[in-house]
Amino acid sequence: MSKFLKKIKIIKPDDWHVHLRDNEILKKVSQYTGTFYKRAIIMPNLEEPITNCFRSISYRRRILNSMTPNTAFQPLMICYLTEKTSPEELQQGFFKKIFVGAKLYPHCSTTNSKYGIKNINNIYHLFNIMEKIKMPLLIHGEENNLNIDIYDREAKFIENTLKPLRKKFPELKIILEHITTEEAISYIEECNSSYLAGTITPHHLMLNRNNMFIDGIQPHLYCLPLLKRKKHQIALRNVISSGSKNFFLGSDTAPHFHKNKINTFGCAGIFNAPSSLLCYVSVFEEMNALQHFQSFCSENGPNFYNMPINKETITLVKKPHKILEKINIGKNIIVPFLAGKRLDWSIEK
Amino acid sequence: MSKFLKKIKIIKPDDWHVHLRDNEILKKVSQYTGTFYKRAIIMPNLEEPITNCFRSISYRRRILNSMTPNTAFQPLMICYLTEKTSPEELQQGFFKKIFVGAKLYPHCSTTNSKYGIKNINNIYHLFNIMEKIKMPLLIHGEENNLNIDIYDREAKFIENTLKPLRKKFPELKIILEHITTEEAISYIEECNSSYLAGTITPHHLMLNRNNMFIDGIQPHLYCLPLLKRKKHQIALRNVISSGSKNFFLGSDTAPHFHKNKINTFGCAGIFNAPSSLLCYVSVFEEMNALQHFQSFCSENGPNFYNMPINKETITLVKKPHKILEKINIGKNIIVPFLAGKRLDWSIEK
Repeated sequence: MSKFLKKIKIIKPDDWHVHLRDNEILKKVSQYTGTFYKRAIIMPNLEEPITNCFRSISYRRRILNSMTPNTAFQPLMICYLTEKTSPEELQQGFFKKIFVGAKLYPHCSTTNSKYGIKNINNIYHLFNIMEKIKMPLLIHGEENNLNIDIYDREAKFIENTLKPLRKKFPELKIILEHITTEEAISYIEECNSSYLAGTITPHHLMLNRNNMFIDGIQPHLYCLPLLKRKKHQIALRNVISSGSKNFFLGSDTAPHFHKNKINTFGCAGIFNAPSSLLCYVSVFEEMNALQHFQSFCSENGPNFYNMPINKETITLVKKPHKILEKINIGKNIIVPFLAGKRLDWSIEK
Repeated sequence: MSKFLKKIKIIKPDDWHVHLRDNEILKKVSQYTGTFYKRAIIMPNLEEPITNCFRSISYRRRILNSMTPNTAFQPLMICYLTEKTSPEELQQGFFKKIFVGAKLYPHCSTTNSKYGIKNINNIYHLFNIMEKIKMPLLIHGEENNLNIDIYDREAKFIENTLKPLRKKFPELKIILEHITTEEAISYIEECNSSYLAGTITPHHLMLNRNNMFIDGIQPHLYCLPLLKRKKHQIALRNVISSGSKNFFLGSDTAPHFHKNKINTFGCAGIFNAPSSLLCYVSVFEEMNALQHFQSFCSENGPNFYNMPINKETITLVKKPHKILEKINIGKNIIVPFLAGKRLDWSIEK
């Protein structure tokens, strides 16, 4: 595919890592995900987390109600694992297609993770079932030990937790979410297994930790896992350009009100839904790897989750797109990723 | 000195790295430095930097006017080096004791450093004179190359800039300000020279980079150089506990309005003047090194600057001290370091 492409048509992609939140934020942000993506994994870490089928069904209904009527968009729901999750609930939810997977949050590792797992051994019985019924496990892969340097937590999680877990449950389908390091990439590539994949966000591809400190500290670029050293950013860009089947699109779009980002304790999360696909295509173009854009966005994910590949297509055109400065929600605003900046690509209307 | 001391009397210390700012902030914050310290090096990076004798004289007058009448406090003024600084101005300023030293800010390396030095070779002629007249050079030791990882900039500065500079001017008295790394410590210790010293802040002794991300990103803990990995914090604590003569107190107290700290581009600086000496004594106590507290606070600095050691004393008592939550300045507030927290030591009234 020539680097000087003016237009690129691909199978309509899916976003395998989305935070839609709830209530007024949900009603405002869901449209952005629906514009670019046919399906989206909806992360369950609401303030009242999605820990059972009932909550999932009603949350899914709220999501669909927030979209334009008869939208083709399909929310894929995930169970928030706690140390009280019942195996029956998990199994029933998966068989009835209420859940397409379950998410492991290490206790207090990120937003709304206070119900998360303190000791992973306490839920080995759940992994046992998930492996048997082939229910995917999505993982926020960071140690939550405050004595571990915050920039080492992903690499340490792979050593301390993920490797032993996979030895114990070799056929448990695991997605290591929003990977940010060379260590995560090389582990996934070494395994090269149909039981292990990684999602990669646009911001970890486009930026590194220096960016968060240019012209002052920029809490809008604060996310977990943190933006890392440049060598890690380069490794992420190289692996997606290699066309590896083990990685796919997971934007980790995570809206927060501006007042909660620009705060004495600014919360973690980057809201990139209004531009994520345009960011991804820009990176693939910069890496001269547009030939792998479709597989990363639209094939590797469904293949890993054993879901059908979408029939619809989407076309992006090489036409400047200016990203919104802000989104008003009542008296509050949400500032999107790269607010006000210009990307080279737009979606063809 | 027993760890279970209830009271400690030392020669009144000096703070060899203070930002007092100007106007309404100056009027409010200078009292805190005056409470604990007899003398203080006043950093020259105002919005209109102190680049000549005239500005220094009038700034010094404004500082003294901001203090209680007939205060014993002595501001020690510093010339802000630019690529236009005239050798005569520097020499005259030093001989007339208008300046006690000159500060090198790499261009855009920190607050108000846009007038700083782009290429250090351009001011070798100034270093030549400073070496001859024995005028100390204070350095913000970080490379300002955006391609260098922000956590590497101090170590790289030592390799790329400081070592060659000292080879060229072996008898230029250099103070590496607010050092934060093992590399800076080992270089200063290896040299073990009366021409090279380092100042150390309370926050780099008390915290490491994890602290800036506990419960969310905390812009109030954003300073330059950044808080580093724990191993660097430990190395700083060890070197002050060793009693080394090459290091001394430089709090880098740097007030900013809360609105400029909690901001889309939060500025760098921690305002620790209301508690810095109480923080230092706490660290020396934790390290069982109270026997070295006086030399770090009141002797190593004057000895390096060839100034008399103070005659007055100050007594700290083991009595809880609650740090102010905030300081009101007109419609604005300044939030001090460890705001609202309790320290074990207080100043004896």
